[in-house]
Amino acid sequence: MDFDKKLSDLGIAPGSPAMPVANYLPYRIHGSVLYLSGMIPMKDGQSLFTGRVGDGLSIEQGQECARQCVINGLDWMRVALGGSLNRIEAIIRLRGFVACPPGFGQQPQVINGASDLLVEIFGDAGRHTRAAVGSVALPLNVPVEIDFTVAIREGA
Amino acid sequence: MDFDKKLSDLGIAPGSPAMPVANYLPYRIHGSVLYLSGMIPMKDGQSLFTGRVGDGLSIEQGQECARQCVINGLDWMRVALGGSLNRIEAIIRLRGFVACPPGFGQQPQVINGASDLLVEIFGDAGRHTRAAVGSVALPLNVPVEIDFTVAIREGA
Amino acid sequence: MDFDKKLSDLGIAPGSPAMPVANYLPYRIHGSVLYLSGMIPMKDGQSLFTGRVGDGLSIEQGQECARQCVINGLDWMRVALGGSLNRIEAIIRLRGFVACPPGFGQQPQVINGASDLLVEIFGDAGRHTRAAVGSVALPLNVPVEIDFTVAIREGA
Repeated sequence: MDFDKKLSDLGIAPGSPAMPVANYLPYRIHGSVLYLSGMIPMKDGQSLFTGRVGDGLSIEQGQECARQCVINGLDWMRVALGGSLNRIEAIIRLRGFVACPPGFGQQPQVINGASDLLVEIFGDAGRHTRAAVGSVALPLNVPVEIDFTVAIREGA
Repeated sequence: MDFDKKLSDLGIAPGSPAMPVANYLPYRIHGSVLYLSGMIPMKDGQSLFTGRVGDGLSIEQGQECARQCVINGLDWMRVALGGSLNRIEAIIRLRGFVACPPGFGQQPQVINGASDLLVEIFGDAGRHTRAAVGSVALPLNVPVEIDFTVAIREGA
Repeated sequence: MDFDKKLSDLGIAPGSPAMPVANYLPYRIHGSVLYLSGMIPMKDGQSLFTGRVGDGLSIEQGQECARQCVINGLDWMRVALGGSLNRIEAIIRLRGFVACPPGFGQQPQVINGASDLLVEIFGDAGRHTRAAVGSVALPLNVPVEIDFTVAIREGA
């Protein structure tokens, strides 16, 4: 299965993600595991939305943000793996934080925006474990932040 | 040590957990590590409690929820490992989120409901690292969500 | 590179951290990965500060707490690795939770207090992936909690 082609078929163009400005890395590989930092829904230098889901932002807007977190994560996975997603063996885990008010209980629906895209691209290899959790506030007031743990094939 | 027997001695019957309805998995194995999704305190199709600990729910009710998260996690571990808990080498880490109001500081006491049960069942192998963190709101308004990282023995 | 010496050059003396009182461990090693529990900014038996960053506490006070979480984490890493930090291969990931009010977006600046110290001590080996996330409330009302995943060299 050619994940790069699949992504292209979905009309998602590879981007050139900006390095974090602080003293941390977007990714690190240890053994056969690729760790990614928390991704936020930045596109062309700004967040798709800011604020809280369930208080001004809809579930659908939250899902769009979750999807953008995946797209940004894929850009870093590609960089980490020498320009192709095809060394990915499986998406192991994602942890998704959703900025929301007290009493909001639809974090899973929001994070489905990420999960659905991963399975569209990677098929069974994209099925992952996850935790969806509410957060009082996220960096830059973005509504969604997701980090990723990915199994990779040795070599290349 | 027979962990299945220990569980049975504690009067905890194996359950048949329901698959997540969304595009994610309850567990994934990579190498000698078993990853579990965030477990919530569902029992017979509904949460033991809903709401926030420290605002309507007591510490004891939170602990009961944390314990139920472990019981649900054990059900998935058993499925992942071919029907027995005996391939478990150690519980590596758990991350426990507790829905609570601002100013609440007893997340550790709540998550002890999970930690204590793990040590009861697995002895030293059940002693784990953990983070206990407050959350503004959790899926379906449950008061506790816990995910697990587990070391397993190769084979079987 | 001698990390122990580097730490000493920075004027940070090794401490003797107190065991958690509950049924969990400060650290666990599995394979070549060292997992640490969530560290809080305790010093001499009490937290540097309590409360929320962005509501009474400044970014700088939050950074000081993040730095203290690292110092406490280093004490446990040293214990885990037989008395020296020199078996550390790399800091893989940290997850930093910042207690804050709704609308606060500077979690990254707060967690920089941890990231900067790690890079000062370990150089490139200290560059890690991370997620910085807001939390409605943390254990004992501390403003910052950080957990660590560390790659270690086999042996010793």
